[in-house]
This record gives sequence, C-alpha cells and structure tokens, in this order.
Amino acid sequence: MLYVIGMGPGNKDNMTYRAYEALKNADVVVGYKTYIQLVKEILPEVKVTENTGMKKEIERCQLAIDLAMEGKEVALVSSGDAGIYGMAGLIYQLAEGKMNISEIEIIPGVSASSSCASILGAPLMHDFATISLSDLLTEWDLIKERLHCAGKGDFVIALYNPKSFGRTTQIEEARDILLQYKPGDTVVGIVRNSGREDESKEITTLKDMCDCEINMTSTVIIGNEMTYAKDNMMITPRGYLV
Amino acid sequence: MLYVIGMGPGNKDNMTYRAYEALKNADVVVGYKTYIQLVKEILPEVKVTENTGMKKEIERCQLAIDLAMEGKEVALVSSGDAGIYGMAGLIYQLAEGKMNISEIEIIPGVSASSSCASILGAPLMHDFATISLSDLLTEWDLIKERLHCAGKGDFVIALYNPKSFGRTTQIEEARDILLQYKPGDTVVGIVRNSGREDESKEITTLKDMCDCEINMTSTVIIGNEMTYAKDNMMITPRGYLV
Repeated sequence: MLYVIGMGPGNKDNMTYRAYEALKNADVVVGYKTYIQLVKEILPEVKVTENTGMKKEIERCQLAIDLAMEGKEVALVSSGDAGIYGMAGLIYQLAEGKMNISEIEIIPGVSASSSCASILGAPLMHDFATISLSDLLTEWDLIKERLHCAGKGDFVIALYNPKSFGRTTQIEEARDILLQYKPGDTVVGIVRNSGREDESKEITTLKDMCDCEINMTSTVIIGNEMTYAKDNMMITPRGYLV
Repeated sequence: MLYVIGMGPGNKDNMTYRAYEALKNADVVVGYKTYIQLVKEILPEVKVTENTGMKKEIERCQLAIDLAMEGKEVALVSSGDAGIYGMAGLIYQLAEGKMNISEIEIIPGVSASSSCASILGAPLMHDFATISLSDLLTEWDLIKERLHCAGKGDFVIALYNPKSFGRTTQIEEARDILLQYKPGDTVVGIVRNSGREDESKEITTLKDMCDCEINMTSTVIIGNEMTYAKDNMMITPRGYLV
C-alpha cells in the first residue's frame, strides 16, 4: 500500500489519528528532508526513511511507487494537506498503468490555509480562493488572471508560496492587481512557520503587506470587504449579526 | 477556556489529536445535535452536552460563551474545519467586549473540501475557489458574481451547501453560469456523507451533474480545464508531467 499523507502544520497535535497510524505502521517513509525531520521528531521509532531534495517531486513519487510495488507499506509525507498543491495528483499520474489504484490511499490533513486561519482568528468564514504564486509549474499570466478574478469576486484569498529566495516580485504584482479591486486598507494576515516553534503572525493591510516579512514558510490571507481586524485578530463575518 | 473545534469529516480517524483531547477534557460540549451525536459515538465518556437545533447558530455560540464565562472548559464542535463556514467567526463577533479573546482557541480540522478531495482522488491540486450556494446569509447576486469570477479564472471549484430540502434551484443556476466558461464535459465529483458509514461518491460532468443525487450532505467539486477522470477518480495535474 502507498499512503499519501498530509501531516498538517507539522506537529503531532494537529495531525490526524489516521495519518499518525499510517506513519507508525509504514515500512518506509518517503518525503522531502524537512518533512522527514519532522516525522522523526514526532515518531522517533519510525523505521526506514528516504529523503529527497527540493524540486525533486517526480523522483520522490517514483521512489514511493517503486517501494510500494516491491510490496512495502509506504508513507509519502508532506505538510498541510497532501491533496492541496501536494503529491496526491502526481502519484496518481505516475501510478497510471503500473500500480493498482486501489493500493493508493490519500490521507487528508489540516491544510495550511486552515491552520493559518486558526492562528489569525477567523478569516475564512466566507467564500475564498486559494492561489499559489509559484510560477515554476504555472504560467504567470494564468496566475495573474486568477488574481484578477478573485479580486473582482471579492473572495477572501489565501496566497500559497508567496515568495522565495529566487522569486520576490510576484507578491508585489499580486498586491498591485488586487488593489484594482480591493481598498488599500483591506485586512491582511500573514503567518510564518505555522505549527513550528518559531511560528509568528502579523495583521496588516493590502497596501502595506509587502513591507512585512514574507518568505517561503509564509501563508498570506487577504480579507474580503467585510473582514475586520480587532485585538490583533482577523475576522470575516458570515452575516449572522448583520 | 472556549475551544472552537473542527472535528473533520466525523470519525475519530480523521480527527486531530488536539481536537480529541479538547473534547475529552471539556466540562461541556456544545453543538448542533448531529455533531453531538457524533461526539458521543467517538467519545462515549464525554461529560455534559448541550445540543441546539439547526439555524440556531447565534444561540449556540452565545451558550458556549456564557458557559465559558462561568469558568467552564467548553468545546464548541462542528464538522470539517470550524474556521471555514463554521462557528469561529461568530464566536469572535459575539465575544467582543465580553470575554477575553485569549480565552478562545480555534482548533482547525480537516475541511470538507480536503476530505472530499481525498475520496475523489486529487482534484484540488491547483488553484481553487470555495463557494457556498446557501443564500440564507449571503445575497444570491453576490454568489452568482463569484461563480462567474471562479468560472472565468478556470479555478477548480468546491461547492458547499449545494442543495437542501427547501433550496433546490441554486445548483442548476450555478451549473448554467459555469457552462458559460467551462466545457460541458468538465469533470465533476460529488461526495455524499463524507466520513460516515453511508459515504458515497460519483464522478460526472458539469453538463450532467444535476441529474445526480445532490443533497445537504454533499460537496461538489468541479474541475479546471486540465482535470481528468480515470478509474472512477478525479485528478487535476499540477503540471509536473507536462
């Protein structure tokens, strides 16, 4: 069996029972080295691990499939939910014609947007759009079009992969696009290192968000027109008290 | 303390350790009767429970706040993630000026979209929009505008509250709006009773989805232009193999 596991933000507390059990029972755990390190902290008795470098998604999934086809119980881990910008899709694509699909199980986890929202207060109480700003696998023009559409529809917006060492301008372009639809004082929440020891958060505005520290570990949530900030929390009403 | 808990789809396996512990340690568990029933099945030793009827969100949150202000450890439960169309926002709104905000903790859970996606395969691997079709608390015109925007941006779309006994036309209007942007053979996945004994799923198309059984317990996920169906699964590639 091949279990594709979303660990949630990265501590045992926010992991599901099902994810933990699958990790504990696996013959081998496969993942990017940062996640393998987290697994070892949570489950020191974990058996064999295989870590791979960044941007090695295809190699990692191929390895997991090969091991499963040898008859091993394999756990492929990622943070958040494996079904959201995770490895679930690639596993199905690579397994096609090779492996019986009934031997693949996706174990969902608490997504980055859910965990970050809980830290910020309650920003996702209404319709929202999740957009990755990484243009490694998606044309930047399509990402820009989606930012326009999400802005026009006054969605709450969760931005994944807002910035990395080599990719710093997209978040500024995103801000400029969204400012065409949303006022500059729209509430924005930033969470860094969600679920880790050095977790931090910041409540700011759309106009000022690029002055805040945003990095590879950050998720940025941009409010809708009803979102307000109070006591360093970010709240989107659903309409109950209106 | 007041813990606002997302239980995930509704069985212990998909619940986080943090959610389970908070429920176990609570002096009183408050929730809609269906969720209280689930809590009792998972945790028969649970102490006092207070259930309230449907559409009694304000009363339910007020009760949880009142009990917490009496010094009790209170767990307010809902299914999925409490921060997505859940009680988290209303709790903050109602607690304002009454209760110390540091005595409120939101415990995130596996959202309905994450759990349904894992059952369908891997439909949420790319940018997606979450839209509730319930017009009880939101103007239908705004919901329609968001459907137009999500369609135009070729987002994968997760529809919450697609239909109820008294509300049956919205899903058909949603289909008609989305057909203006997406082809009729766009892959659609429907999950009913996610995480329950009578869980079922169906893979269909945008053109035909309204012929399928869709009810209050259903989540509907509509693919983007790259989503494909294979072996009764629904997969949205992220671009790795393109």
